[in-house]
Amino acid sequence: MGHERAVVVVGGGVIGLSVAWAVADAGYSVRVVDPTPTRGASWLAGGMLAPVTESWPGEEHVLELGSSSLAAWPDFASRLTAAGGDPGLRLEGTLAVALDSADVGTLDVLAEFLRGLGREAQHRTARELRAMEPGIGPGVRSGLHVPGDLAVDNRALLTALHTACRRSGVEFVTASAREIHPGAVVLADESTVECAVVVLAAGAWSGRLHPALEPLVRPVKGEILRLHGRRGALPVPTRTIRAHVESRPVYLVPRADGELILGATQLEVGFDESVTAGAVRDLLRDAEQVLPGIAEYALTETAAGLRSGSPDNLPLIGEVAPGLLVATGHHRNGLLLAPVTADAVVALLRGEDLPDAVRAADPARFSGRDT
Amino acid sequence: MGHERAVVVVGGGVIGLSVAWAVADAGYSVRVVDPTPTRGASWLAGGMLAPVTESWPGEEHVLELGSSSLAAWPDFASRLTAAGGDPGLRLEGTLAVALDSADVGTLDVLAEFLRGLGREAQHRTARELRAMEPGIGPGVRSGLHVPGDLAVDNRALLTALHTACRRSGVEFVTASAREIHPGAVVLADESTVECAVVVLAAGAWSGRLHPALEPLVRPVKGEILRLHGRRGALPVPTRTIRAHVESRPVYLVPRADGELILGATQLEVGFDESVTAGAVRDLLRDAEQVLPGIAEYALTETAAGLRSGSPDNLPLIGEVAPGLLVATGHHRNGLLLAPVTADAVVALLRGEDLPDAVRAADPARFSGRDT
Repeated sequence: MGHERAVVVVGGGVIGLSVAWAVADAGYSVRVVDPTPTRGASWLAGGMLAPVTESWPGEEHVLELGSSSLAAWPDFASRLTAAGGDPGLRLEGTLAVALDSADVGTLDVLAEFLRGLGREAQHRTARELRAMEPGIGPGVRSGLHVPGDLAVDNRALLTALHTACRRSGVEFVTASAREIHPGAVVLADESTVECAVVVLAAGAWSGRLHPALEPLVRPVKGEILRLHGRRGALPVPTRTIRAHVESRPVYLVPRADGELILGATQLEVGFDESVTAGAVRDLLRDAEQVLPGIAEYALTETAAGLRSGSPDNLPLIGEVAPGLLVATGHHRNGLLLAPVTADAVVALLRGEDLPDAVRAADPARFSGRDT
Repeated sequence: MGHERAVVVVGGGVIGLSVAWAVADAGYSVRVVDPTPTRGASWLAGGMLAPVTESWPGEEHVLELGSSSLAAWPDFASRLTAAGGDPGLRLEGTLAVALDSADVGTLDVLAEFLRGLGREAQHRTARELRAMEPGIGPGVRSGLHVPGDLAVDNRALLTALHTACRRSGVEFVTASAREIHPGAVVLADESTVECAVVVLAAGAWSGRLHPALEPLVRPVKGEILRLHGRRGALPVPTRTIRAHVESRPVYLVPRADGELILGATQLEVGFDESVTAGAVRDLLRDAEQVLPGIAEYALTETAAGLRSGSPDNLPLIGEVAPGLLVATGHHRNGLLLAPVTADAVVALLRGEDLPDAVRAADPARFSGRDT
């Protein structure tokens, strides 16, 4: 295979692996550079595929892109199950619940916005919510049921992508990238990996690897806990449950094996990956407002990851120089946007047109260049 | 060396290792049976050597035994530093603080009890406490200063004991014991380790290994957190700080490197080693009442261990059958009582008399036998 078909993907998280798998299956020769593939921010994610409950007036582009990727998810999951393993897609849907009158107002705004866009979101009384999820606490006043917002087991997904990549011939270079140039990646040991095209998919670290990304990508710290149901405790819910408590967003995402992911803080504190005592206290306290029974669950993991924030909450997907594509800035939506991002990178490599929803994510939007 | 000098210690926690080291130095051939030496309940301990602030009217025997062991600690630590490594003994003392009027009353009872015994414990106003430890929160009303209650770095201690044991010729059998008989230990793989004397020092598991211990030793679960000071946060305190919050005891024990140990729950839930979300929430919330600045600290570890409870909070140190000694039931005081327990086992092997404080711990007290 000639050099012109050689692609190096920098970053082995959900975006890098999804891109590598798709690009390899499109007939390219692919190497992924990552010191610890699968173990980036996406390893610590909650797993929500929830463009609707994540949406907000003014972020229509984000909703449109997320919805188009969510539509691709069932097929993506079934292809991945065949190619690498079952990513644990869950179809039970999402509840967004309100604890006080401010929350009720927030959900009303969201419901109105969604109605205007023709999206499905049904108002539910407290009694109806408890009939759906008996563990919901007495402080919950009402909520929205969004059956189309799904969830996936992020770790099963990453493991399956890693397997699918290797089966499709992707090679892994387990090293840190130090610098990115069009057609070349300089590693920490000063050696260089050459190729026709580099795809920069290094999440929060992307800004450190290329000056064009430096002003556009910032780390957004998220602390997240993993709980597990225990004998004698209330069963874990079947749906994802989201809420705001004292303005802090909290979500609880169940896994098939009795695990319950509880996230997440959102902190603009640079490249700090400490889990603070205060964050854990807040997450537990807030989640107990929603599902009091979690006090009896086992706390099995506390961790912090760095999302890749962009200036407008849309990702950065496109060409920044000949021989250098980027796929980063996915913020809280990396898992959701993996299928559409992977397809977009293949189209860019082939010189094909992108769908409008993806063209909105072109990084050129920040440089005034004509896209 | 003849069979009559062969000793097997079952259990490689702080008691088992201290016993093994002392017995080996007394000229015996010693093997320690433990699948994971150093990694028992004492690995998860706070490190308090605090017989005075742990004491309570009616438990004079516990105070007397603890005080005699505390008196032995400086020499024990300096011998251990030479033989295996520095266990990080800290001499800054302990503050017991009160958050509400019930706590003030509790500390008054303790102070009165200690005064009657001639023990040193000085009343401190809130202002005096904050002059000693500036991080103490506004909810603290008053306290007791107990300069003689010390602390040790439990992990440095265990590592040093492990090294000292090996240097003194102790052999380690990294296997689980399944049954104990006088002069013989049956391992999980059915093989037998023979010796003249077995010392059962398996903490909470001791009751499962010999029927004589079964009614006397029970597991008492303790959840404990490890925090670490961070740049920009208030410095960690210099003294151990203890309190009760809503009747739950909480303690904060500083380490030299900026670590702060936060413990501990006390739960009678059998052999359950889960860390529950509710326990972590309570520990963090209670500790913040005492030291609000910990919210900014990193939470670096959550863990649960099983203390070995006895019916009267005194340990079980003595002979239960010819060829079978026990050294268990140390509950919250294993680190404190390690020196006196190790000396007692050597004395028992030599047929020497025990000090009165240790004779009170003879397990025969529960069988009505004459000691």
